[in-house]
Amino acid sequence: MPDTATTKTEHIMQVMRDKLASRALNAGDRLPSIRQLATAMNVSPSTIVEAYDRLVAEGLVRARRGAGFYVSDTKLPPLNIADMGNERPRDIDPFWVSRQSLDAREGMLQPGCGWLPEDWMPQDALRKGLRQLARADDAILTNYANAHGSQKLRRYLLGRFAEEHLPVSLEQIMLTGSASQALDLICRMLLRPGDAVLVDDPGYFNFHALLRAHQLRVIGVPRKMDGPDLDAFAAALRDAAPRLYVTNSALHNPTGMALSPQIAHRLLSLTADHDVTIVEDDTFADLEPEPSPRLAVLDGLSRVLRIGGFSKTLSASVRCGYIAGRQDWIEKLVDLQVATSFGGPSPVATELLSSVLIGGGYRRHLSELHTRLAAARKRETKKLAQLNIRPWSDPRGGFYLWCEFPDDIDTGEIARRCVTDGVVLAPGNVFSPSRSAIRFMRFNVAQMNNPKVYVALEKAMT
Amino acid sequence: MPDTATTKTEHIMQVMRDKLASRALNAGDRLPSIRQLATAMNVSPSTIVEAYDRLVAEGLVRARRGAGFYVSDTKLPPLNIADMGNERPRDIDPFWVSRQSLDAREGMLQPGCGWLPEDWMPQDALRKGLRQLARADDAILTNYANAHGSQKLRRYLLGRFAEEHLPVSLEQIMLTGSASQALDLICRMLLRPGDAVLVDDPGYFNFHALLRAHQLRVIGVPRKMDGPDLDAFAAALRDAAPRLYVTNSALHNPTGMALSPQIAHRLLSLTADHDVTIVEDDTFADLEPEPSPRLAVLDGLSRVLRIGGFSKTLSASVRCGYIAGRQDWIEKLVDLQVATSFGGPSPVATELLSSVLIGGGYRRHLSELHTRLAAARKRETKKLAQLNIRPWSDPRGGFYLWCEFPDDIDTGEIARRCVTDGVVLAPGNVFSPSRSAIRFMRFNVAQMNNPKVYVALEKAMT
Repeated sequence: MPDTATTKTEHIMQVMRDKLASRALNAGDRLPSIRQLATAMNVSPSTIVEAYDRLVAEGLVRARRGAGFYVSDTKLPPLNIADMGNERPRDIDPFWVSRQSLDAREGMLQPGCGWLPEDWMPQDALRKGLRQLARADDAILTNYANAHGSQKLRRYLLGRFAEEHLPVSLEQIMLTGSASQALDLICRMLLRPGDAVLVDDPGYFNFHALLRAHQLRVIGVPRKMDGPDLDAFAAALRDAAPRLYVTNSALHNPTGMALSPQIAHRLLSLTADHDVTIVEDDTFADLEPEPSPRLAVLDGLSRVLRIGGFSKTLSASVRCGYIAGRQDWIEKLVDLQVATSFGGPSPVATELLSSVLIGGGYRRHLSELHTRLAAARKRETKKLAQLNIRPWSDPRGGFYLWCEFPDDIDTGEIARRCVTDGVVLAPGNVFSPSRSAIRFMRFNVAQMNNPKVYVALEKAMT
Repeated sequence: MPDTATTKTEHIMQVMRDKLASRALNAGDRLPSIRQLATAMNVSPSTIVEAYDRLVAEGLVRARRGAGFYVSDTKLPPLNIADMGNERPRDIDPFWVSRQSLDAREGMLQPGCGWLPEDWMPQDALRKGLRQLARADDAILTNYANAHGSQKLRRYLLGRFAEEHLPVSLEQIMLTGSASQALDLICRMLLRPGDAVLVDDPGYFNFHALLRAHQLRVIGVPRKMDGPDLDAFAAALRDAAPRLYVTNSALHNPTGMALSPQIAHRLLSLTADHDVTIVEDDTFADLEPEPSPRLAVLDGLSRVLRIGGFSKTLSASVRCGYIAGRQDWIEKLVDLQVATSFGGPSPVATELLSSVLIGGGYRRHLSELHTRLAAARKRETKKLAQLNIRPWSDPRGGFYLWCEFPDDIDTGEIARRCVTDGVVLAPGNVFSPSRSAIRFMRFNVAQMNNPKVYVALEKAMT
């Protein structure tokens, strides 16, 4: 019969060995204090002391006099870096850009990413909001949101929409986990695998990935300076019988251009005779110094659904998006979000966003961003020109420049080379369902104020 | 007596019509070859030819000379969103309970809801965490999370799993927006519309709603005191060829019971010969005073995926769930989450959760909850007995009591009456795919310490 004390000691040792093997504890980490672990494991402190001492003897742990026990630096089995998810050989596709950007290691430069550097964001207002939250009602800190999401934040959106002369009711707005989740819910409501969806070519690559995850047929319509090519659009309506068109009108991603009033009107007229719903993503709205035409406003939200979020100008960490549309659709979308996420975004998140948006400093923050981005667009355009890289368009806001490279250059290859030099890029074909943008690349001017970007680009181009 | 050949033909036609209605087959798709389908359906090829010819006559299918049969482009019936249980005024269904609970007005009592009152939650630790967050790095406040989600929180989970002797690596864990979203991503990865999924009957109603939103066939297996009825489970494996089984083992929702070690082992053995993945929802783990058997641990995460979250014991406002499973699956699930939500839960959220979980007071908070809940279960059991409402089981943890009402009482009707008196309930049939729980109801003992609950119940029962 085993000695109980020995068994307990061995049990403790095995628990700690498992923690080391699984890297729950790493080299240099402090082990739980003897008293803590004794309480947690319901054994006497002497059992823990015995277990720790034997782990020291094994070399896995070392003791520091008076300062507790630490994981030894030397005995951990090596981690297989290839398993870390970062360096997998994969095609240069939408997932490549997303994962390279999201999982970029400390010190990587990211002219290919879709967000502003943290020091461009309203940090002070966020910190103030967090301090306020620390004094908020209990319910905000621990309860689920109501099914449509924070009334306060929806009221704010209502006010913003009213400024555009887009009258909606509170029940026509719901909050979602993000703008991507907004599109995701809409696809679930309206579409079935195999349905055709029109997108801009070039257009936002992650929306293409999302649509493909729904097993939809993604059909690109060439995007021109002032909107989609209407002849191609009409032909696609006729030939593919699409159920949905997904676009962004303001500061179109990646070209940075706006829809002209004429194209906006003609596009709505064209689709009127077809059973096509339009999703207009307004994510970049707050980066626009002057408002440009919106399909949602012309249409009055009858066949257009507006989606958006706060990640580009406020925080991408505090996840929240929204959908505005017909009330009967919003009801269904709310049910769908309850079924698939048990409700919308965190009350902690929406309270924090509301405090920044309504706090007074947000409009000043935006106008500072506009000025700073205008300067960055000018500065980086000049630097890119030295490498014969030319903006295809002249955006009046935002952080994107859609650029053309010299003849015979495959920007996918450039991206592949640059990532080994610590620079993550967004090559053109990632945005193009027809893969006709091999000589294009989307640059984020706010992420390029570092000579290393240009050193890597020049090296990759030669 | 019906002509057997006619019946068979009609059966084939109905199978194909269902496939079209559910969009398992879409406009332009090729129908299965005559030989294939004849073999699969165990009928003669001439029966299939007859069925296809008649579908051609109906306009649903067209024949291409020498190239088989195809779905017609024009005749697909419109999708019926009402199939999801959406129509208003609505039945007492999963959406009814979710929406009544989430949208409860100030002052409503909620013995039917699935969460603890806010004053049972670790408010002080959350407030301390928010004050710490107000001083955190800029990047945490405004950047996207990495694609797998916070390392710190994943390391914490790793440590907890190691205590259960479930060795996993960091790359086998990903964070999601919620436990529901975890299941949602898994359904997207593994299943297609029309696939069969086994669930417990009774079982968590929102999972049933989620599975139906994916257009899956939800098949209930009777849940007994110690786990699913294994004879029924084996029959369902044989007859329905399910791809997935979704369950929770610890403090099963709604019965509050655990899986016995014997049932756990036999269940895994039973499924080993079938291509069935098991999703084990561990949401209630921290409410368990003593650990009970887990399929994930026995299986070592080869065919079992573990999902869970922090909403029951820490905060439902700070949204975050997780998935642990095979690394190749987690890689795919991470890509799917990037496509559909552009990444996982907010760094603000995960930092806040980590600060509470690792802060030291969390285990004490749990043991206080266990004591408080044991007292509440005893107290409310006594009060319910006065109305002849008896717990079906004797849970050893958690806040649920699954109770049986006296003969001839329809708990759906009770719920309908009580909501007009300001009391939201969770009637049994909402949990039961077979709708065989009309005399049952799930009570949340932490939400019942108010005489008005019993006044409303008594009034509704007479």
